[in-house]
Amino acid sequence: MLYFSPPFSEGPMYELIPTGTITSVPGFLAGAVHAGIKSENELDLAILYSETPSTTVAVFTTNQIKSAPVILSQRHLLKRQAQAIVVNSGCANACLGELGIADAAEMARLTARKLAIAADENVLVASTGIIGIPLPMDRIRGGIREIKLRQDGGHDLARAIMTTDTKPKEIAAQYDIEKSKIIIAGVAKGAGMIHPNMATMLCFITTNAAVDVDFLQSSQREAVDASFNMISIDGNTSPSDCVFLLANGLAGNEIIGFNNGNAFQQALNEVCLYLAKSIARDGEGATKLIEVTVEGAIKQAEARQSARAIASSTLVKTAIHGSDPNWGRIAVALGQSGVEMREDKLDVCLNDVYVMKQGHPMPFNREETRVVLRNKDSVIIKVYLNLGEAKATAWGCDLSEEYVTINSAYLT
Amino acid sequence: MLYFSPPFSEGPMYELIPTGTITSVPGFLAGAVHAGIKSENELDLAILYSETPSTTVAVFTTNQIKSAPVILSQRHLLKRQAQAIVVNSGCANACLGELGIADAAEMARLTARKLAIAADENVLVASTGIIGIPLPMDRIRGGIREIKLRQDGGHDLARAIMTTDTKPKEIAAQYDIEKSKIIIAGVAKGAGMIHPNMATMLCFITTNAAVDVDFLQSSQREAVDASFNMISIDGNTSPSDCVFLLANGLAGNEIIGFNNGNAFQQALNEVCLYLAKSIARDGEGATKLIEVTVEGAIKQAEARQSARAIASSTLVKTAIHGSDPNWGRIAVALGQSGVEMREDKLDVCLNDVYVMKQGHPMPFNREETRVVLRNKDSVIIKVYLNLGEAKATAWGCDLSEEYVTINSAYLT
Repeated sequence: MLYFSPPFSEGPMYELIPTGTITSVPGFLAGAVHAGIKSENELDLAILYSETPSTTVAVFTTNQIKSAPVILSQRHLLKRQAQAIVVNSGCANACLGELGIADAAEMARLTARKLAIAADENVLVASTGIIGIPLPMDRIRGGIREIKLRQDGGHDLARAIMTTDTKPKEIAAQYDIEKSKIIIAGVAKGAGMIHPNMATMLCFITTNAAVDVDFLQSSQREAVDASFNMISIDGNTSPSDCVFLLANGLAGNEIIGFNNGNAFQQALNEVCLYLAKSIARDGEGATKLIEVTVEGAIKQAEARQSARAIASSTLVKTAIHGSDPNWGRIAVALGQSGVEMREDKLDVCLNDVYVMKQGHPMPFNREETRVVLRNKDSVIIKVYLNLGEAKATAWGCDLSEEYVTINSAYLT
Repeated sequence: MLYFSPPFSEGPMYELIPTGTITSVPGFLAGAVHAGIKSENELDLAILYSETPSTTVAVFTTNQIKSAPVILSQRHLLKRQAQAIVVNSGCANACLGELGIADAAEMARLTARKLAIAADENVLVASTGIIGIPLPMDRIRGGIREIKLRQDGGHDLARAIMTTDTKPKEIAAQYDIEKSKIIIAGVAKGAGMIHPNMATMLCFITTNAAVDVDFLQSSQREAVDASFNMISIDGNTSPSDCVFLLANGLAGNEIIGFNNGNAFQQALNEVCLYLAKSIARDGEGATKLIEVTVEGAIKQAEARQSARAIASSTLVKTAIHGSDPNWGRIAVALGQSGVEMREDKLDVCLNDVYVMKQGHPMPFNREETRVVLRNKDSVIIKVYLNLGEAKATAWGCDLSEEYVTINSAYLT
């Protein structure tokens, strides 16, 4: 008898580094200060610096109201190259017309000068916080001067971009390719609403890999579509959302492209997924992560849309908050989502217990399910449409009284 | 100097009857009992009866998951004629497969026999309440037997269809045409979530007018589009939603049609609008009605969609709950809505105070606005896109901690 090992490993080709930060990647430094934009004595201004210009790609909010930093960074990224990001929390610099653009441009200019970066265009800007109030530029100017860049500054940056987030969100993954060690690291802020204002999502990813820029763009799009674009805290798209991915190429590897990008894509997907789920789990007032998988859809877009619709339904979210296996709300959210479906083919599982099969209620131990829901900090919902092959997973969180309190008790 | 009175009155051609019920219309009787579907000793089963077969039109939920009564009533309405509606609260009779259809059909059959209506098809059925649990048919059978129809039974029916509604919702309007007095009366239930389950909306409208059935259908569609289809409590479309409109023709008027339907349309619009706003105002946990008007859109569909998006935004709703003039959230909800817009043309008014003009923040007395918001039980948001001529208004309510409590503390 012969034993075969599979020709290709089915497991991941990368290794996660749970303590990783964006400065775990060689060639990246970061630093942060309390500039006084937020009133608490918390870090609120940070710089990420790449010692060499990095190939850089980005995705931005789809909201038609775009913050000034988003507009400016889009312009700066025309050459798909960057060497620094300057970022603040506490003020989104949005809805301010020309003033906002001028302030964002000044942030880029001051950072370029401080770091002796030749072109302002090589500095990206991000701001997260309250909308419609100008940046306190005097404090920003002083803060940029004070920031000290350090090899281990990544964690400080992760804290400086937090708003109502309860914990920093950062991770790294590594894998070997020929003689090079490739590291991909990411940091994100959530799903808190700024001070508390918008569900602003920021994410910066660094890597030392040398990567073809077109592949980098495509792989970022794939990773973001399966992670950040599949989470929802409250259905509100911020004008500040952006994900920047900087690749400095210092690993000296053979350039990664469409022909050899499998491991890079896998590791990047995992970094984005980890951060996205951290954001969902840490949604304002959230006590539980909700994972919704829709299988058997006819079209991929419908699977995505219906998984998101269920994860976003206020009724599903409040039922989960109350640990109640109220599966009727899942079926109804699905029915409203626009996916092609047939009620008499529909199966629904809650934490692997069938609660609906072929459109009919299934007997299940309601009290037991309730206890399981109460004791777990995540809930798995699976919906089988039994019509086609398409499948998608979305993430959200429960809706608690605390969410309402956070977002109504606050005064602008 | 000559004084002209305008050739056509610009005011409404009808008069509202604030104490009106659906049995204010001659020829309609109603009655209700506590059958024991809801555990509290509340009315939960009712019949509306038309002494003569009425021309009847309806609109139903767009959710792909449709309750059994919706499926049955759609079939029964093929001839656009009905003589009775049997309705219960406490159980939605949804997601139950063939059993649900059989139970709904039995409700229609029992009602037809009780009232000596020749065809079961002339009885419509509506149910509102918890999903996925069968109707207690023994109690329904007993209840239908016990119901006594009365000339003044309309108010009892209004109470019997309530769930988490805090008050009944009913109104009538009347106007004279030649020698006939036309009355249009309506009753609705809201925006509570059944016991508490789905944002089930039911509405029954009666009139003694003789109306051409095609015009009746068209005028109902117009009235519903501008009223019920423009409210949102929590973004969840119920599988039970329906609006029935019965016209018995007893007024003996010349048949109302497309050529002479102006006054009828106006009065019907007003009845639907009154009921729709009552539902929005009485949303679960709501303390304030929110009215959002979007003007200057290029397309009517975009004006509607963006007004609804603002009225539905959790961030706008929590800001209003906190009486905070956080207009950034209004701009951002608009930017996310998909309407064609330009930030630098955008004006926003909060209770007639300009807070944004041409995309720039306007100075306003924040503290004063906060006091006004706190003391009013309705808030008017006006958005001017300044691009075209289309305009639409939507209604919603604030989002309170109480909403979450109602929908999470409950156990199925």
